[in-house]
Amino acid sequence: MNPDSSSRPQLKIRRVNLDTGRENVVVMSRRSKALRPEVFRGFSRVELRCNSKTLLATLLITDDGLVGIDEIGLAEPAFRRFSEPAGSLVTVTPAIPPDSLDAVRAKIQGHALSADEIAAIVDDISHYRYSDMEIAAFLIGSASFMTSNELLALSRAMAQAGTQLKWNQPIIVDKHCIGGIPGNRTSMVVVPIVAAHGLTIPKTSSRAITSPAGTADTMEVLTRVDLGVGEMKEVVNACHGCLVWGGHVNLSPADDILISVERPLSVDTREQMVASIMSKKLAAGSTHLLIDLPVGPAAKLTTAMEAMRLRKLFEFVGDHFGIAVEVITTDGRQPIGNGIGPVLEAQDVMTVLANAPGAPVDLREKSLRLAAHLLEYDPELRGGSGYNRARELLDSGAALKQMHKIIDAQGPSACRTDLGTLSADIPARQDGVIAAIDCLRLNRLARSAGAPIDKGAGIKVFKKIGDRVEKGEPLYRIYAYDAPEFELAIAAAKADTGYVVGSRSDSGESKP
Amino acid sequence: MNPDSSSRPQLKIRRVNLDTGRENVVVMSRRSKALRPEVFRGFSRVELRCNSKTLLATLLITDDGLVGIDEIGLAEPAFRRFSEPAGSLVTVTPAIPPDSLDAVRAKIQGHALSADEIAAIVDDISHYRYSDMEIAAFLIGSASFMTSNELLALSRAMAQAGTQLKWNQPIIVDKHCIGGIPGNRTSMVVVPIVAAHGLTIPKTSSRAITSPAGTADTMEVLTRVDLGVGEMKEVVNACHGCLVWGGHVNLSPADDILISVERPLSVDTREQMVASIMSKKLAAGSTHLLIDLPVGPAAKLTTAMEAMRLRKLFEFVGDHFGIAVEVITTDGRQPIGNGIGPVLEAQDVMTVLANAPGAPVDLREKSLRLAAHLLEYDPELRGGSGYNRARELLDSGAALKQMHKIIDAQGPSACRTDLGTLSADIPARQDGVIAAIDCLRLNRLARSAGAPIDKGAGIKVFKKIGDRVEKGEPLYRIYAYDAPEFELAIAAAKADTGYVVGSRSDSGESKP
Repeated sequence: MNPDSSSRPQLKIRRVNLDTGRENVVVMSRRSKALRPEVFRGFSRVELRCNSKTLLATLLITDDGLVGIDEIGLAEPAFRRFSEPAGSLVTVTPAIPPDSLDAVRAKIQGHALSADEIAAIVDDISHYRYSDMEIAAFLIGSASFMTSNELLALSRAMAQAGTQLKWNQPIIVDKHCIGGIPGNRTSMVVVPIVAAHGLTIPKTSSRAITSPAGTADTMEVLTRVDLGVGEMKEVVNACHGCLVWGGHVNLSPADDILISVERPLSVDTREQMVASIMSKKLAAGSTHLLIDLPVGPAAKLTTAMEAMRLRKLFEFVGDHFGIAVEVITTDGRQPIGNGIGPVLEAQDVMTVLANAPGAPVDLREKSLRLAAHLLEYDPELRGGSGYNRARELLDSGAALKQMHKIIDAQGPSACRTDLGTLSADIPARQDGVIAAIDCLRLNRLARSAGAPIDKGAGIKVFKKIGDRVEKGEPLYRIYAYDAPEFELAIAAAKADTGYVVGSRSDSGESKP
Repeated sequence: MNPDSSSRPQLKIRRVNLDTGRENVVVMSRRSKALRPEVFRGFSRVELRCNSKTLLATLLITDDGLVGIDEIGLAEPAFRRFSEPAGSLVTVTPAIPPDSLDAVRAKIQGHALSADEIAAIVDDISHYRYSDMEIAAFLIGSASFMTSNELLALSRAMAQAGTQLKWNQPIIVDKHCIGGIPGNRTSMVVVPIVAAHGLTIPKTSSRAITSPAGTADTMEVLTRVDLGVGEMKEVVNACHGCLVWGGHVNLSPADDILISVERPLSVDTREQMVASIMSKKLAAGSTHLLIDLPVGPAAKLTTAMEAMRLRKLFEFVGDHFGIAVEVITTDGRQPIGNGIGPVLEAQDVMTVLANAPGAPVDLREKSLRLAAHLLEYDPELRGGSGYNRARELLDSGAALKQMHKIIDAQGPSACRTDLGTLSADIPARQDGVIAAIDCLRLNRLARSAGAPIDKGAGIKVFKKIGDRVEKGEPLYRIYAYDAPEFELAIAAAKADTGYVVGSRSDSGESKP
């Protein structure tokens, strides 16, 4: 491929213990006579070749003994991906950028891309051939506009880039929430209800990236979640459902890479969000999909109009790929349940499933509503009876039993799962009625306290919108494992509780 | 600034010998108890604080002894920029992205930016607060459109971000070529002519990035070019002119950073090119500026229309900042002079200045034409007499004398400056007349031979467009220092000479 490699002396691979994350990074000596890295001035990307294997990587230069002059150091991800033993000889040449970058440039200049061009871009990204900069170029080029055909092509290409699950059942149901609402762990109630009914619901979830808990983090309090594809299938076959971390199942790896660049840049558009979600559902083999769009002043969607436009995009992509998509909007003005943080949220879920006293009504009701929609995908069920069937499965203890079955099948968790031993209440500063709760603020406070890394850290909410409080009465309690995080969270909460307390008694309806 | 730093334990700085180029990179142990890098999952950027100093950097994780658990390793650029001794204690927190990124996001969403927003972005970029991805986001967001006001604001902000030269003379002339034409070293003929006349021409030039020689690389064959601002001013005061590398003078450092991201992505637009060039001329204190736009099939501009649109942009920015800008288009169909590569190009320049036999006529004539424009900025000179004055200064030896004066003032070069001892001729494959020369191809061949790192490597051209050749007659000669590069270049030249030989005798006029 690269014409000027034949005459180049080879270098010995050395493993360099450096975790460079997504990007392939290699290190060469400035004195490397074989290669004269100065030749690469202006080329920060190199191509390694060994037998028929190639790897594109970003080049760093060292002046001392980190690598010898006849060596090339491969940082961990590059070493793992190249999978040649240390000491193997490789040829190194300035990298020729992937051909698909021409399409990225065309996109930046305002051209729409063909399905083949998008497939080539996704293939190169999922094989780590793009630098961070190049990924950013594609994302930002796509952020300015994405045609309907591009959206379909991107969804399909991302779905095909990783594991594609196949099931023997004709109906595979799934649910997805676009996130942003603290404590919103409905999947952990919905999956056992739907599985107890006998529908297949192989649920994969994400870990928190910027929030204090993802469903995978919360489920991990109760059971192991890092199952591989084979293990996941066994659980689903045995229990009709599962609740595992999507990371090990490797559905849509290109999407995982795109997200890791989108997040720090905060440039994700509606189209990118839909392509991301639908690619994973396509790869997961879902036939019926329920999407939950919370709307609220501090939610990802702030108006019904935004939610409607997003709904149309989901429906369009679902129709094209033959997935029955149903999209509902839900109340995203405040946390769902009482807990924010993995252990506290897991407690909420288990009290709902156990019909225990004090179980949060909002989490129960929202979960029943979602489960009702999913259950009606069962052709055997009479139209309109989904809600009653869901309540029956929950109230009878069938859902709890199914949850224990799933937990046993997935195996024991290796995490520390006790509640934080440090705790303190944050009081209301005045009498009145709760008018608004800033979800973003509560998320940030729970993260300050240590969640999701410290599973027992977080916030237990005592007051919701419309509730009366007296000055000094606790709004919520902060939990933590360690003093530094604890003090940090308390100081931040005292500076801004995230609660708006109004004097009007009808302020439960206000949307500030 | 960052609220959660007070309670964090500190880490000791360790210098890590790793050249990470533009980006600040730090290394921490995965076992670092003080900081628990897992907390940074999803945060690849961290902020270091020591006294009142802060530094934003990209975080890499190591598992072994590269850094201790109570240490933080600073790669060379980060160590240099933070400028605290090894062993100093620093606080490390997840980085809060620069505020100006909000404006970048607005730009991506199609908003025009204010001058203040652009100034904040440029300030953050020039202080290394942006990651590569974030720089790419700004560039690509700006590539889709840039308003006139944004163009002016970007030019001004970049000019103000670095050194700003002040001169006592009322007229400071400068010339600039947008590049792309091999051998086009007119500056090295024009500067001594103009300086010999007594006009002030403090010329800064770039090194080659993707070409086989920049003016700075070629001048370095004759004299030292890495002068600082003070030294440069002394030379200009003594000689009315200089020919130094712009890199050490630090005009428009933000532009240098933007270019280093633009180049690998190949996303530079007309507006970005104009802002880049004009920011440097503004910072250099130029009052009168001549811009050379070569037009040709393998040049950066391929049509007169493109050149005209670019000309209007230069004039617009020049008018706004009170710089008298004149833009001319020149023949960019083939190399200027005979040499391609630093030593060969320096030889061309010196033979033209010395009026030596065999001096390339095209380099002489183009240089005289450019010098004529610049000389007419002298109010003392009669309109239309610039060309005659330029020729007088060249033919009389005054320009050569001035060049020697400049060379002496800048001091001796430390480079190896002999011509490559390996050489071979590349013959024509058929009889005929040279119809076209692929400048990009010749640039690439000269680079394969070792230029610009090997100053004596390159190509000496024997035939230009319109010349007759016989089959087997040499088209050009390849020079190199070392066998691997030499053989590589010869093999590539034999595969594709870059010359089109036609049968028509009038093909000197053809523009394929």
